[in-house]
Amino acid sequence: MSERRVLVTGASGFIGRRTLGPLLERGFEVHAASRTGGAAGTPADVAWHAADLLDASERRALVEAVGASHLLHLAWYAEPGAFWTSPVNARWVAATIGLFDEFAAAGGARAVGAGTCAEYDWDSPQPLREDAPLAPHTLYGICKDATRRVVEGFGERAGIEVAWGRVFLLYGPGEDERRLVANVARSLVAGKRAATSAGTQLRDFLHVEDVARAFAALTDSSLLGAVNIASGEAVTVRFIVEQLGHAAGHPELLDLGALPTRPGEPPEITADVSRLRDELALTPQIALGDGLAQTVRWLRDQPRVS
Amino acid sequence: MSERRVLVTGASGFIGRRTLGPLLERGFEVHAASRTGGAAGTPADVAWHAADLLDASERRALVEAVGASHLLHLAWYAEPGAFWTSPVNARWVAATIGLFDEFAAAGGARAVGAGTCAEYDWDSPQPLREDAPLAPHTLYGICKDATRRVVEGFGERAGIEVAWGRVFLLYGPGEDERRLVANVARSLVAGKRAATSAGTQLRDFLHVEDVARAFAALTDSSLLGAVNIASGEAVTVRFIVEQLGHAAGHPELLDLGALPTRPGEPPEITADVSRLRDELALTPQIALGDGLAQTVRWLRDQPRVS
Repeated sequence: MSERRVLVTGASGFIGRRTLGPLLERGFEVHAASRTGGAAGTPADVAWHAADLLDASERRALVEAVGASHLLHLAWYAEPGAFWTSPVNARWVAATIGLFDEFAAAGGARAVGAGTCAEYDWDSPQPLREDAPLAPHTLYGICKDATRRVVEGFGERAGIEVAWGRVFLLYGPGEDERRLVANVARSLVAGKRAATSAGTQLRDFLHVEDVARAFAALTDSSLLGAVNIASGEAVTVRFIVEQLGHAAGHPELLDLGALPTRPGEPPEITADVSRLRDELALTPQIALGDGLAQTVRWLRDQPRVS
Repeated sequence: MSERRVLVTGASGFIGRRTLGPLLERGFEVHAASRTGGAAGTPADVAWHAADLLDASERRALVEAVGASHLLHLAWYAEPGAFWTSPVNARWVAATIGLFDEFAAAGGARAVGAGTCAEYDWDSPQPLREDAPLAPHTLYGICKDATRRVVEGFGERAGIEVAWGRVFLLYGPGEDERRLVANVARSLVAGKRAATSAGTQLRDFLHVEDVARAFAALTDSSLLGAVNIASGEAVTVRFIVEQLGHAAGHPELLDLGALPTRPGEPPEITADVSRLRDELALTPQIALGDGLAQTVRWLRDQPRVS
């Protein structure tokens, strides 16, 4: 087995396809898995594999065929809106545990999973450190949290290193347009009114390329346990939306406060990024204003589909 | 589908085989599953199925073939000693989540899982109520705890009732002889010295038939969430061992304190049994002294294998 062969799952996803370049740069032989076995615009020297990870036999065959030393597992159910509460989350718990088990059995050494800020108790003091209380309010958060508990305990006993990148909010070109930044930006670029809530809540946004770089670095490290992947900066959603209005040249299309704030919406979700900064030596490469402007430009350059 | 058809997994196990009678008495059509598809000494009017639940396709086929309204899931990795730390625990998390998912998809209505006192933070004030802090110290406890988190959240979203019986210590005829009560009793019956620790720790012991009755009652109820299955009485391990010495007629064979107390052994693990008593109207039918004497008699009547 190559000592530096990584299997990336969810490799055609919003984050996944941006991890492939950074992993190649770090000297990994990169094997990318997705349901269809490919993604446009990704580096040429990646070996693609098609596999449905919810199918135990396809999953096992993939793991055995690749024989990776490292696993970066990003695949999960991610349908915007639905993913918070869908029972399908439970299938991904089982598939993830199965994957880590099979990876260890096949001689793997280090596995990195993708967690979420939704694992934390959002009522805790901010910013949220990795050892802050966990109290997920959603099935998605419950399932990610439970998965981490199992794979960490499993890793200790099965002799593989396990790390867990907890992603906060993210944005960037190619984001699903049902998600906040892409949704507002799309309206503005189309010259349509963008109705949002008042946007007083504080959130921690990181450009998807910085998120992907962080996952590549975490894979290429010996850190164990949870590591927040975020900017560490709290900004209001209002600020994000106004930046998009400015970048699109249409601040007058913004209608902040036209939508009600969702009940139970926490006032702040911000990461403490000490581990990312001090132990992985990573800071955001893309400033928020630049990243949002880039996202607007990208959308403007896309052919309109509808 | 019958409105009262129950699928019992782990049905040939120490607890499982004793749930079949109580479930029949409660009017269930009883389908029992085990790897071999049978167990000696169980009621005749039970339909047995052979299935390896760690095999996703065998598991799915079982669930679909039975079409149960109720699921009592007792199967898990239970090799004495090894089960605390074995990575195989993680497979049972995945299999259990898969089973609950497939049961819901096949039209099931109510599922009961088997938890453990090892889910709790043993340093909490005793007795442990179901809402006591959870902080499993072992991979077994971590995996049971994580499974409950997922299946409870899943049940809420998938529209099935989910309950979780947390078993404390248990004993009775047929227990694996690597476990405390059976081990000491076997030595005494064989006329051999029984070396134990000083046995000052307080524990909550319940006869396996009472445990099985509680699982049958929980299955036949509409209770949700965790329910302790225990006696609610704290007794010292020393008391248990002395009762066995008395029942065997060989108190002089006991050598209490010959073995060291294991490091980290908690001074007390006792259940608060309010839910079991008040919501399921259950109290132990077999007093501890009687149950221990019965266990000794049973062992004495067994042909010696080694």
